[in-house]
Amino acid sequence: MLKRKINQSAVSGDETPLFWPAKMKGGVLFVLDETLIPDKVSYIKVTTVDEAVKVIQNMKTRAFGQLLVVLNAFFLGMDRFNKVSDKQPLAELVKIANALNGSRPTFPFAEVTGMVLHWAQKAAAQDQDIKQTVTRNINGYLQGIRTRRMDRVNCIAKFVKKGDCVLTHCNVSGELALAALICKKEKKPVRFFATETRPYLQGAKLTCWELQKVGADVTLVADNAIGSLMADQIVNKVIVGSDRSCANGDFANKIGTYQIAVLAKEFKIPFYVLTQPSNRIKKGVDIPVEIREEGELLRFNGKKILPGKVRGFYPGFDIVPHKFVTKDIPINVN
Amino acid sequence: MLKRKINQSAVSGDETPLFWPAKMKGGVLFVLDETLIPDKVSYIKVTTVDEAVKVIQNMKTRAFGQLLVVLNAFFLGMDRFNKVSDKQPLAELVKIANALNGSRPTFPFAEVTGMVLHWAQKAAAQDQDIKQTVTRNINGYLQGIRTRRMDRVNCIAKFVKKGDCVLTHCNVSGELALAALICKKEKKPVRFFATETRPYLQGAKLTCWELQKVGADVTLVADNAIGSLMADQIVNKVIVGSDRSCANGDFANKIGTYQIAVLAKEFKIPFYVLTQPSNRIKKGVDIPVEIREEGELLRFNGKKILPGKVRGFYPGFDIVPHKFVTKDIPINVN
Repeated sequence: MLKRKINQSAVSGDETPLFWPAKMKGGVLFVLDETLIPDKVSYIKVTTVDEAVKVIQNMKTRAFGQLLVVLNAFFLGMDRFNKVSDKQPLAELVKIANALNGSRPTFPFAEVTGMVLHWAQKAAAQDQDIKQTVTRNINGYLQGIRTRRMDRVNCIAKFVKKGDCVLTHCNVSGELALAALICKKEKKPVRFFATETRPYLQGAKLTCWELQKVGADVTLVADNAIGSLMADQIVNKVIVGSDRSCANGDFANKIGTYQIAVLAKEFKIPFYVLTQPSNRIKKGVDIPVEIREEGELLRFNGKKILPGKVRGFYPGFDIVPHKFVTKDIPINVN
Repeated sequence: MLKRKINQSAVSGDETPLFWPAKMKGGVLFVLDETLIPDKVSYIKVTTVDEAVKVIQNMKTRAFGQLLVVLNAFFLGMDRFNKVSDKQPLAELVKIANALNGSRPTFPFAEVTGMVLHWAQKAAAQDQDIKQTVTRNINGYLQGIRTRRMDRVNCIAKFVKKGDCVLTHCNVSGELALAALICKKEKKPVRFFATETRPYLQGAKLTCWELQKVGADVTLVADNAIGSLMADQIVNKVIVGSDRSCANGDFANKIGTYQIAVLAKEFKIPFYVLTQPSNRIKKGVDIPVEIREEGELLRFNGKKILPGKVRGFYPGFDIVPHKFVTKDIPINVN
């Protein structure tokens, strides 16, 4: 019985690079360069808060990786305390938080950095060592997140049934791949369809890559093939991630998620969302949507798709109303 | 009054290459190589029926261009009559028709070739010269099509209102661009949004190119941005083409059309389709959908997107139920 339980569970040895894409080592933050996958697995060395902001802005990391970068950036910032501004750690932490908050608009960076500032303020009020407290709390928080993500991986694996054809969009940072690995170990046949996710092709480059790495059955489709897949009953479940959740259940996720949600409703296909519940923002319309630079759409692998001066419009995210969600799968699954 | 009428109308001098992408000249069929646009406007010289089948199969031409190639291929085939099989023109015409019918599954080639065979059979029954009759009828038919397409261009131009933001998908072979040109001449501001239309990028490469050439205001979006564009009320009309129509109004068009239709319904945005009405096929489910080779999806500009052996699934067309259509704009607009 115990043996079976272990077989069913994802353990940290199974972690794929995308499951935990940024790690501190020797005072340096190693951030997986997701734009180079699948050609190579390479890490960017980040040593300052400014560099951390840059890897986020350039989308070298995204989704869950951003949370890791934001939290670990405090370690990088605090490393400088002893050198320059030992006396005013609180003011320095606010500067770090502000820099990180401004990096990209759609993500709830301010919620994360606000939590860190709260710890620092509390430590200051209680006359504790701020750096020590913040370090301990961030590490504890990260450990908790890791455990809860692994719990969700196991939850997804139970949730997916024998013979399911699961459509996913963009990349959910390792959780689906680890769930697929569990299904594989249990000899439960599951098939995955991944959208390309233009223009960055996260679906093609990240999701297909990691699902293939764990030996899952994955097929790539263009972003415009969803209607066809659903009309022909080729997929029977949709699982997507979310970059930000609202109190009313609306959520932000990679552009393209909204139309998949509408189609799922039209074709009566259950639509599941991996969420990080939060009450800090009331409803979807309050989430600012990042409009990315048009050049990202008009180029492919660095080369312009079109000559001349055609304009492009590239909203980075969709805000999906909760009415389209069949079921949330929150990170705190237990 | 008359002057104003002339200004409002598209005339053949305005024709863009995509409006009439295949023409006979000196016994050779010149077919616009749509895969090279927008880098260059280049024509493939087609001299045999087999070569005509090949340009269709390789998608060097598509949509309306295919109709032109199929009809003109009879001229190429009949040119050989005097040389090899003068005695049995009817049997030879059937061979030509069969070769063309087999080129791609979704298009109603058999309807077109059947019409030609019918002319030939009638001529034979009436003891007329088959080659002469077929030649005269094909030329007359093409002339009629040209006039009716120009009529539809004028119809679209009237249909589009000042300030409209029109979403289109794939490429409707010149008609939208010519309508945009009329709007421009009338100083009626209209904005267009074109989807990329992966994997061939007809929207980016053909539609943006020809709309830009006529000086229209066009913006490219990824295929996954439609939900966002509609939710944010950025577009207020959808105009798409159709490759095949059914008696009940269902129609086949480039993959991606179905999901745009569903989204238009969800967001209450009128969805218009340029149709070629036909009663030969009863309803959408009876149309065979071409599944294209996965390599076309897994490559971009000839280069593999992904290393390894990820599978791709690329249905070439959507079959859209008529219930999603706000209004058909048939080719016989008068």
